[in-house]
Amino acid sequence: MTLARALFAPRAVALVGASGDAARNTARPQRFLRKHGYAGRIVPVNPGRTEILGERAYPSLADVPGEIDHVFVMAPGDATERALEDCGKRSVPVMSVYSDGFAEAGAEGAARQQRLVARARELGVRILGPNSMGVVNVPGRLALTVNAVLEMDVLPAGSTSIVSQSGTMLGTVLSRGAARGLGFARMVSVGNECDLGVGELVDLLADDADTRVILLFLETVRDAARLADAARKAHAAGKPVVAFKLGRSALGEALAKSHTGALAGTDAAVDAFFRDCGILRVEMLETLVEIAPLVAGRKPAALARPLGTLERAPRIAVVTTTGGGAASVVDRLGLYGIETLPSESGAPIIDLTMAATPEKYAAVLDALLANPECDGVLAAVGSSAMFHPQLAVEPILRAHRTAKPFAAFFTPHADRSLALLAEKGVAGFRTPEACADAFHAFFEWRAPRPPVTGTAAWPADAPVLERFASLGVPVVQSAIARAPDFAHVVPYPVAAKITGVLHKTEAGGVILDIADAAEFATKVKRLNAGAVEVQRMERGLAEAIVGYRDDPLVGPTVLVGAGGTLAEIYKDYALRVAPVSVEEAEEMIGEVKGLAVIRGYRNLPRGNVRQLAEAVAAFSRIALLPGRPVAEAEINPMIVKRDGVVAVDGLVVMKE
Amino acid sequence: MTLARALFAPRAVALVGASGDAARNTARPQRFLRKHGYAGRIVPVNPGRTEILGERAYPSLADVPGEIDHVFVMAPGDATERALEDCGKRSVPVMSVYSDGFAEAGAEGAARQQRLVARARELGVRILGPNSMGVVNVPGRLALTVNAVLEMDVLPAGSTSIVSQSGTMLGTVLSRGAARGLGFARMVSVGNECDLGVGELVDLLADDADTRVILLFLETVRDAARLADAARKAHAAGKPVVAFKLGRSALGEALAKSHTGALAGTDAAVDAFFRDCGILRVEMLETLVEIAPLVAGRKPAALARPLGTLERAPRIAVVTTTGGGAASVVDRLGLYGIETLPSESGAPIIDLTMAATPEKYAAVLDALLANPECDGVLAAVGSSAMFHPQLAVEPILRAHRTAKPFAAFFTPHADRSLALLAEKGVAGFRTPEACADAFHAFFEWRAPRPPVTGTAAWPADAPVLERFASLGVPVVQSAIARAPDFAHVVPYPVAAKITGVLHKTEAGGVILDIADAAEFATKVKRLNAGAVEVQRMERGLAEAIVGYRDDPLVGPTVLVGAGGTLAEIYKDYALRVAPVSVEEAEEMIGEVKGLAVIRGYRNLPRGNVRQLAEAVAAFSRIALLPGRPVAEAEINPMIVKRDGVVAVDGLVVMKE
Repeated sequence: MTLARALFAPRAVALVGASGDAARNTARPQRFLRKHGYAGRIVPVNPGRTEILGERAYPSLADVPGEIDHVFVMAPGDATERALEDCGKRSVPVMSVYSDGFAEAGAEGAARQQRLVARARELGVRILGPNSMGVVNVPGRLALTVNAVLEMDVLPAGSTSIVSQSGTMLGTVLSRGAARGLGFARMVSVGNECDLGVGELVDLLADDADTRVILLFLETVRDAARLADAARKAHAAGKPVVAFKLGRSALGEALAKSHTGALAGTDAAVDAFFRDCGILRVEMLETLVEIAPLVAGRKPAALARPLGTLERAPRIAVVTTTGGGAASVVDRLGLYGIETLPSESGAPIIDLTMAATPEKYAAVLDALLANPECDGVLAAVGSSAMFHPQLAVEPILRAHRTAKPFAAFFTPHADRSLALLAEKGVAGFRTPEACADAFHAFFEWRAPRPPVTGTAAWPADAPVLERFASLGVPVVQSAIARAPDFAHVVPYPVAAKITGVLHKTEAGGVILDIADAAEFATKVKRLNAGAVEVQRMERGLAEAIVGYRDDPLVGPTVLVGAGGTLAEIYKDYALRVAPVSVEEAEEMIGEVKGLAVIRGYRNLPRGNVRQLAEAVAAFSRIALLPGRPVAEAEINPMIVKRDGVVAVDGLVVMKE
Repeated sequence: MTLARALFAPRAVALVGASGDAARNTARPQRFLRKHGYAGRIVPVNPGRTEILGERAYPSLADVPGEIDHVFVMAPGDATERALEDCGKRSVPVMSVYSDGFAEAGAEGAARQQRLVARARELGVRILGPNSMGVVNVPGRLALTVNAVLEMDVLPAGSTSIVSQSGTMLGTVLSRGAARGLGFARMVSVGNECDLGVGELVDLLADDADTRVILLFLETVRDAARLADAARKAHAAGKPVVAFKLGRSALGEALAKSHTGALAGTDAAVDAFFRDCGILRVEMLETLVEIAPLVAGRKPAALARPLGTLERAPRIAVVTTTGGGAASVVDRLGLYGIETLPSESGAPIIDLTMAATPEKYAAVLDALLANPECDGVLAAVGSSAMFHPQLAVEPILRAHRTAKPFAAFFTPHADRSLALLAEKGVAGFRTPEACADAFHAFFEWRAPRPPVTGTAAWPADAPVLERFASLGVPVVQSAIARAPDFAHVVPYPVAAKITGVLHKTEAGGVILDIADAAEFATKVKRLNAGAVEVQRMERGLAEAIVGYRDDPLVGPTVLVGAGGTLAEIYKDYALRVAPVSVEEAEEMIGEVKGLAVIRGYRNLPRGNVRQLAEAVAAFSRIALLPGRPVAEAEINPMIVKRDGVVAVDGLVVMKE
């Protein structure tokens, strides 16, 4: 019995804490299993009952005869722990736990959860949850869940699976999908993820024959490394992974807490992480429900985006017979920087009022999908979608499937037309906003980057800039000059700084722009220090910030931002999983608006972008230090000149 | 016969170009009028028929006996012009024109449209369109439209009216509303607005007894002054006006075209205009459909937002029994800067699992709505909304209506629950995104500003900075120094600039930081000019841009932005309808992120925000120059110092 089989297709299920009162939550799994045609054996377990809703019941799991593949625990108190012991004795491969009072309930609950999972490992029992709403296998007719939405009479089967950190969302996605004919394969509520986490479930679904697209509803990321591996595996298997993740507006909070160098809040790091392992991210809940047919069987678009070349924005052909409806999508696409393929008359929308027959309409669609200037096609359909679904949808279904994203948007309320599309695996969107969100996610989608290997080393006890220099970062020439004569060999002009003091500038411990030895001799005395750091004065075209952070959720990340206060005030930075290559660093620099001034802006002189990218790539190798000892590091400022870059100041915060 | 009556409740309607083929567009008005129970007289007009779909038909409008209140023209060619003549002869008050080939069809069509409207004015006939899909009066049973969505069997009546520049959108909004029980009063497709425009229709609806909320679907604004007056009238009548306007992403295009000073694209100006006349703006199409019950009978929230005081963000209490669903709204609210009222335990969501009865649940809602710390309430409801609509909705309906916005969000597909709310006039949202969009629009909503009167004057032939100074803007001290001795009285240090040349800096015509008379004498010779402008060198804490633009759509606007390249690179500016008061200018300054550096950022010295605001207010009075001769003007840079502000350079572009 494989884990996947026990989880999604158990031959027998025991329901610990099953209620005989059909109205209670704890009666639902039994009712839903029956209602949706579960073919295996259902065994309610309840110490006070011998029969529950028509099934023979047993006082404890130990008393149940025959083999049990999957135990679902709903009982309060220490029933979970007792059930686990019984599972161990009976060699039940997996136990799903709806019961709460674990990590979600404070420190005591967390300790309890730790004990539970430790014991489960000893016993060889895998746990889903606790605080999980359970598992649904639609084609397999397993509705092992307390989610009330399973009251639905018919569950729509499909090839999309979902793993959710919110149990409620299983029902949300299921019911909203069903209303427009979108079906599902597996649905899993992971709860607290004490054992089976999102990553491992994605791994299982990558192997699952019924699953073509994997959706994730996330509130956090608890197993980044596992999830990254699983996402790469899913990609290799041709199964797109799409995430909707909450916590975006926590970015501001994280930003306020951190200091300038550690700008990257956790959500931005998660974004970088998704991109790194090939997970599409959607902004709207509705998009998560609707996007599957757009990505199923497709791969990330091969849009060339090298820096400095004339990058072409993604371009969609929007065909329609209804201008107003199409415009509402086009306007939104434009907000994402997506362009439209102009019509022959130069209009941003291609009017198909003339394509009188479905054949002609479909031929236009096929021609557009074959056009190398066109990266995707959207058909916006008006009122015919409401009253003549077959007619409205026919030309769209006639178009031949290609690697390019292709979808329809219906302006009126048109559930039947949406269902006709869904049935044939063609993407249909209810709102212009979700439609544009989905195309945007598609074009932002990248193939996973292969995991980076190798190690780096630096002189751990050397000054910060020396450490960075040892990685290959150009740093400012500097020396320590000591009393009484403060001799040094740094060429003038120089700056002099007292050493060993934070916020040197505020403390009056910095003298800039010292022109020659005489001025140096006079001014350095004022600092009243036994030794000063002498730095060559560097001037450039612009300043940048380069940051490193071992994000608590997703691990090493590297950041490039505009210098001064810009990165902070405008949140103007690019973030990636570290380390990055020089080419990736160039791409990052291209994303920072404030660095436009070094990219050839309004005839300003260009800075040396390539060397900045090389420095960023070198700096990002902090991620490869053995044991990953660094929590945060930053270069601030990194001065960008015409002929190179130079790190002038920096800091490193080691992990505690 | 008033215009409103002829438009929305005509006693007899003539359909010019009515078709006898029921499948054709031009047969629809007749079918729809009958289908939806129009009680007046329907007269098809068609030169080739004596009977159409069971009604007596006439060859021309001139042949129709009896009085006609409203003529609907669908015939091609010059039928529109002929119908107009007949309308004039018969004193028909209003003619709606579906026929196309007018302003939407190039220069020739535009000329044709001009002739049409000129003739209509002579004849005293009002025109809706051309290119209009017609008019619907749901409670009045008038479906005078070609919009195919009117095939619907039952039109939901309500107190929301819509004026749309897209005919398609009437059907979109109608069908989507109907699917969730939201009904409508009047619906008007304005087409090309050659005569009856959005503004005048809002004015009519402000007087309309059946209308409580007015929705606008806009692609542009053609009659800003009229619309502003009408919106103020609607506000005074307690009727909120809500707009969804396309063209947001054209901002980037407009920005690229204009130079730095004319940063404000038309869409930003429209935003300022909406705010100025009290129109709410929503970002999503779905929000337009759903928002009416949230705003009906309510007024803009009285949230104090004075600059420099501890401004409180709007705060919503989110109550729920389903964490995941509520979180998806809260996350989105956070992106708009809206906070949530913390629960007793400090959580951002208030868990109502314990409020076991509808009475208790409603009591919690009432208490929150009465709480002065709480600006609105959102109830997020889970699966019960799907299977037990009455039960799920009951506590929400029991809560007492207050001035604060109150709404529900249902996580599953729950059209019946949405309809129950709609029936009682309580706002319900399908998606977390539209829900957050609606609350955001509500809190951004302001009462219309009274129209500003008065006039300004300036010495039109004086140098630019002198003109600004005459309005009350502090400007840099300067003088013209002439060969041979270049005498002047400006205190050193100074800058010297050649005069009469654009792009002086690039032309090498500017010398900065001249310390004394000797240096001046030496350097000014190099400019090789007969006269130079001598300016006092000014240094400050930051630079700002202040701009004025007579926007082609909405008229005078004033802009404050961060200096240098920031306003352009980050689109970091605030824009308002001009002129503004000093208090409004202070609010604008508070919105510019890059001006954080003068507002007391990270212990940087504060700039004189009050004087900057006074200067902006003074500058904005360019809007009051008689005849509004100025197309664009700008101060760039405006130097902000600790003790004041000073305009160092500027330009004025007069209208052609």
